[in-house]
Amino acid sequence: MEIWKDQRLSQQMDFMKEADKLKTVMRRTTIMDGSRHENTAEHSWHISLLAMVLHEHAPEPKPDLSHVIKLLLVHDIVEIDAGDTFAYDTAGYSDKEEREMAAANRIFGLLPDDQAERIMALWREFEEMQTPEAIFAAAMDRMMPLLHNYYNEGYSWKQHGILRSQVLKRMEPIRLASPKIGSFIDELLQRAVDRGLLADDPSDKEA
Amino acid sequence: MEIWKDQRLSQQMDFMKEADKLKTVMRRTTIMDGSRHENTAEHSWHISLLAMVLHEHAPEPKPDLSHVIKLLLVHDIVEIDAGDTFAYDTAGYSDKEEREMAAANRIFGLLPDDQAERIMALWREFEEMQTPEAIFAAAMDRMMPLLHNYYNEGYSWKQHGILRSQVLKRMEPIRLASPKIGSFIDELLQRAVDRGLLADDPSDKEA
Repeated sequence: MEIWKDQRLSQQMDFMKEADKLKTVMRRTTIMDGSRHENTAEHSWHISLLAMVLHEHAPEPKPDLSHVIKLLLVHDIVEIDAGDTFAYDTAGYSDKEEREMAAANRIFGLLPDDQAERIMALWREFEEMQTPEAIFAAAMDRMMPLLHNYYNEGYSWKQHGILRSQVLKRMEPIRLASPKIGSFIDELLQRAVDRGLLADDPSDKEA
Repeated sequence: MEIWKDQRLSQQMDFMKEADKLKTVMRRTTIMDGSRHENTAEHSWHISLLAMVLHEHAPEPKPDLSHVIKLLLVHDIVEIDAGDTFAYDTAGYSDKEEREMAAANRIFGLLPDDQAERIMALWREFEEMQTPEAIFAAAMDRMMPLLHNYYNEGYSWKQHGILRSQVLKRMEPIRLASPKIGSFIDELLQRAVDRGLLADDPSDKEA
C-alpha cells in the first residue's frame, strides 16, 4: 500500500486500485453484439442502469432504488479473487460461498475498518437475498444474462447446452421483484425457444 | 425495435441494448495494470464506486450520494454516438456540446418519453455542473484518470505530453467538492512529477 498524508485516503486508494481488477474478470456471456466476452466491471454498470430503468415495474411498496444500486455496484467485487461462477455450474457453486467470503474479507478489508464493515454488510445483504432491495438487485443481475443471450443468438446457452427449465429456475427472484418483469421474461424465453436459441426441456414436450 | 407485449418494456429493452455499446467506447486511459485501454462502461462503474468510497470527504452539507451515483451512471452514455473526447483535446471540445446533445436526444429518446426526460435531466445536470451533486460527480470523473495515470506509469500523460498545469486546470471541481481530496490530488501530482510520470511546467521552474 502506498502511504499518503491522509491515512483513510491511503486505504481507500489501495481499495480502488484493487477494485480496478474487476475489469479483468471475464464472464461467460458476450457483450450484446457478440464481439467479445463481457467483464464483470462493465456488467456491474449495466445492471445498475437496468435497475434505474426498470424500477418503475416493482410493485408497491417499491424497494429503495438507491440502495439497490449500491448493492449492485459492490456485489461482484469478490470475483476479483473468487472468479465468476457460471450460473449453471453446480460444482463451482459448491464452494462458491467459502471462496467469496474469503475474497470479501481480503478486498473490502483494504478499506478503513468502519467502511469495510459497511460495504461487507451490503455484500452480505445481496447474497442473503432477504430484503426487498436485495431481491430487486438479484432480479436485475439474473435478468441481464438472458438479455445478452437473447441478443447474441443464444451464445452461452448453446455453448453449455442450457435448457429452458434451468433458466427458469434462476428466474424466481425476478417474479418476486416484479410480476410484470416476470411475464416479460416468460415471453422472451418463449421467443428464444421458438427461434432455436434456447433448448426446450424434453419433459415439457411430453407433458 | 423488437415489440413485446408491454410497450414500455419494449422501449426500455431497446435502450438497454443500445446502452450495451458503451462497452465498446474506448478511452485514452488504460486500466490500472496497463494491460489494455479502458472502456467507458467499466469506467462508469469505477467512478460510481469511487463516489461511494470518497463521499465521506465532502464537507457538510454533503451532496446526496444516491443522486451523485445516478449522475455518474448515465453521464457518459452519450459517448456511444459522440465518442470519448480526450480531456486535453481543445479541437474536440469545440463541438463536444453539440455532438453530445444530439447523442442524448437519440439515445435517451429510445426510452418512454417521461423516463427519457428524467434521464436527460440527469445528463444535463451533470454537464452544467451547478448542483453540489453534479460537482461531486464531476470531481470523481476527473480524479479517476489521474489515478489511472499514476498507477500505469503516466501512460496517457506521457503519450500526449501533458503538463502539470493542464492537469491542475481540470481539477477545480475536485477542490470545490472536497478540499481534502484536493490536497490529496496535489500530493499525488507532486509525486507524479518527482517520479517523472508527469512533466512539470517550464514557467513553474523559472518562477
